[in-house]
Amino acid sequence: MKKKIIRIGVLGCGTVGTHFIKGIIKNKKTLRDKTGIEFTVVKVCDIDRKKGKSFPAIFTTKDSEVLESKDIDIVVELVGGTEYAYESVKKTLSRGTSVVTANKALISEKGREIFKLAEENNAHIGFEASVAGAIPIIKAIRESFAGNKLTKILGILNGTTNYILTRMSLNASSFSQALSQAQKFGYAERNPTLDIKGFDTVHKLSILSALAFNKIVYWKDIPVEGIEKIDPMDITFTNEFGYRIKLLAIAQKKGMGLDIRVHPTLLHKNHPLSTVEGVYNAVYLEGDMAGKTLFYGEGAGGNAAASSVISDVVDIGKKLLCDTHPYKIPFYADKKIAVIPMKEISTKYYFRFTALDKPGVLARISNILGKNGISIASVIQKQESPERAVPILMLTHTAKEEFVQKAINQIDRLDVIKKPTVIIRVEE
Amino acid sequence: MKKKIIRIGVLGCGTVGTHFIKGIIKNKKTLRDKTGIEFTVVKVCDIDRKKGKSFPAIFTTKDSEVLESKDIDIVVELVGGTEYAYESVKKTLSRGTSVVTANKALISEKGREIFKLAEENNAHIGFEASVAGAIPIIKAIRESFAGNKLTKILGILNGTTNYILTRMSLNASSFSQALSQAQKFGYAERNPTLDIKGFDTVHKLSILSALAFNKIVYWKDIPVEGIEKIDPMDITFTNEFGYRIKLLAIAQKKGMGLDIRVHPTLLHKNHPLSTVEGVYNAVYLEGDMAGKTLFYGEGAGGNAAASSVISDVVDIGKKLLCDTHPYKIPFYADKKIAVIPMKEISTKYYFRFTALDKPGVLARISNILGKNGISIASVIQKQESPERAVPILMLTHTAKEEFVQKAINQIDRLDVIKKPTVIIRVEE
Repeated sequence: MKKKIIRIGVLGCGTVGTHFIKGIIKNKKTLRDKTGIEFTVVKVCDIDRKKGKSFPAIFTTKDSEVLESKDIDIVVELVGGTEYAYESVKKTLSRGTSVVTANKALISEKGREIFKLAEENNAHIGFEASVAGAIPIIKAIRESFAGNKLTKILGILNGTTNYILTRMSLNASSFSQALSQAQKFGYAERNPTLDIKGFDTVHKLSILSALAFNKIVYWKDIPVEGIEKIDPMDITFTNEFGYRIKLLAIAQKKGMGLDIRVHPTLLHKNHPLSTVEGVYNAVYLEGDMAGKTLFYGEGAGGNAAASSVISDVVDIGKKLLCDTHPYKIPFYADKKIAVIPMKEISTKYYFRFTALDKPGVLARISNILGKNGISIASVIQKQESPERAVPILMLTHTAKEEFVQKAINQIDRLDVIKKPTVIIRVEE
Repeated sequence: MKKKIIRIGVLGCGTVGTHFIKGIIKNKKTLRDKTGIEFTVVKVCDIDRKKGKSFPAIFTTKDSEVLESKDIDIVVELVGGTEYAYESVKKTLSRGTSVVTANKALISEKGREIFKLAEENNAHIGFEASVAGAIPIIKAIRESFAGNKLTKILGILNGTTNYILTRMSLNASSFSQALSQAQKFGYAERNPTLDIKGFDTVHKLSILSALAFNKIVYWKDIPVEGIEKIDPMDITFTNEFGYRIKLLAIAQKKGMGLDIRVHPTLLHKNHPLSTVEGVYNAVYLEGDMAGKTLFYGEGAGGNAAASSVISDVVDIGKKLLCDTHPYKIPFYADKKIAVIPMKEISTKYYFRFTALDKPGVLARISNILGKNGISIASVIQKQESPERAVPILMLTHTAKEEFVQKAINQIDRLDVIKKPTVIIRVEE
């Protein structure tokens, strides 16, 4: 069988670009196993020569080596902004070469022109990484929920503002203190306007809404308020009411119209989106068939975005190779994975002993546990009832199943133990 | 352009089958808009003649009309079990016709044979609905995280047991009481063994693990404990420790082996899976690129499963028609959706007034709100400080933005109001 290869050119070698290239190299075998295709980055371009030091053999500062190459199947645009990025994406699509981008501003502002150009030139565009980092929300809306009338989207789509609000909430710090912290840890840009004022969220919401409702949604039509005026006092007070403040993206069908907006919003602490903290993102969807679904994951960071860029590259690669067959399914492979026998697993445990309430019982139990290398995290005796059987509850540190079974076996043979001990494993 | 049609035959007209057929009919236009393809159910077969009364024109009790038809592109198998289902799927694939199934037992037990047969006959198999209902977890693992080395899966994959555990937790009822309730509401089968003893979860975990780790994982190799021995006492006690008990599917890479098991498990209440209640399902994944992600949604019910069946039918339909182009993207369409102006939206509100602490102030505020049709859900004055400005916090019932702005404008002009009122909207 002919070897299937997809050759990739990368524009922009910042955080996402670097993680993308490293990911393609690191997971080459995984990708080949799952798709039967060899993915390889043949050229990476950045105006900053220093960016090339990890990839000297494929690095260039001349974008023509990517944009005009006949040996590139997919151009991955990771430059950002809407000017140079737009020009280079247009040039690529015009030549019939497919594009993958993480650029929400570009898709949101120039999507109309770009998708038209792609269709005219029979090229593909992937943009999973433009919204919500590693969360496959664009694929979910376009493919998984294709048979749904979607009615509602709620999203925490911006890691910077969510980090700031989380920080304000945990430390009762002011907006400007929290912003400084975010900048210090690299979670906010030096000029954070696009994030803080909600425009980044608006861009992303316009993309999700257009896909979900299959209509044009201009980002400029979406009412927006940022988080810059949030007072720590309101975070404290609303917390007492049982609410969290989140910069929420909202889009819901109302008759023939769309109630769509981005603003700081109170969410009750029972609401699944209220517990999304720090730089995490989440999207809640409602559809007439699927019901209520929630997707949660890392919204920012080089690896998270690179994960989505790779998934687009894989999808488009398969289409370019006319590989319409599903991903190879391992059920009929002959490689069986070694299942670790139960007795060899290690985890934490909850025990409920039913023991006589008299002095020295706990010492005897602890002694057996100790000899089997099981250390106790906490222990509670629920009732007092001298000389009668009472429950004793225990949480352990990490221990090995084999020794746990052995120890409990020994303990259950003690004369002071009146019922078989209940064992439930704990997952962190 | 030639009209693109995909003709579907359905085996089994139970809950999922009925919802699937109704969904295809109800959302025909949505599907056409999103894919450019016309999906149509041409035949549905069930041994029970009564099942056909909603679809008399396409109903049959003779499965040969589905299995031997030349006018069917995809057979949707919704019979369940591993005997007749296996025979009919084999027959379909042998003819080179593609299959979509929601049957986890079939995929888990006979996957090896079925996928081999599909490949030999160049047919497709979709099985998104076999795990976690409407949650697109199979697509996520196979496609979205194709570029990841996945390292860990945690899942709540069985609605019946999760419903029972939730019910035991809320009502301190016994296992058998909670099971009866589940049966009464249709959340448990009359013979609930497969669910209760964890075998259904094991089937599903074997499917997810095989896909995630790209190796064979036999369901019989997976250690399993059911929930039938869970004592309400342990639910109460562990709750006091801050834990919930869930029937958890666990699979994690440990060196070259796999730590894989299904058993009742304590999850701390801060763990994102601990809050998954009732018949909902959730899957937590860790990958070397994507980091930590969580998918949550309806794990049971006809519509949820039908949503996933439709997504498979759409994916396979596109492949059969060699439509390798991405889903039509609406950005360049000319249909613009009407964005509802901000002043016309209705929601609940949080207000923070800064008002002089003197008698009659609240009456004046309430009066203005009342005249604008805004009713108060709760109000708190945080401090007492006679004759000085103090914060007054208020939550409203649903009100219209326009009237809220008007009312707050009037209120802010009162001589007793010392700062502009803070307004934050609330989302349920």
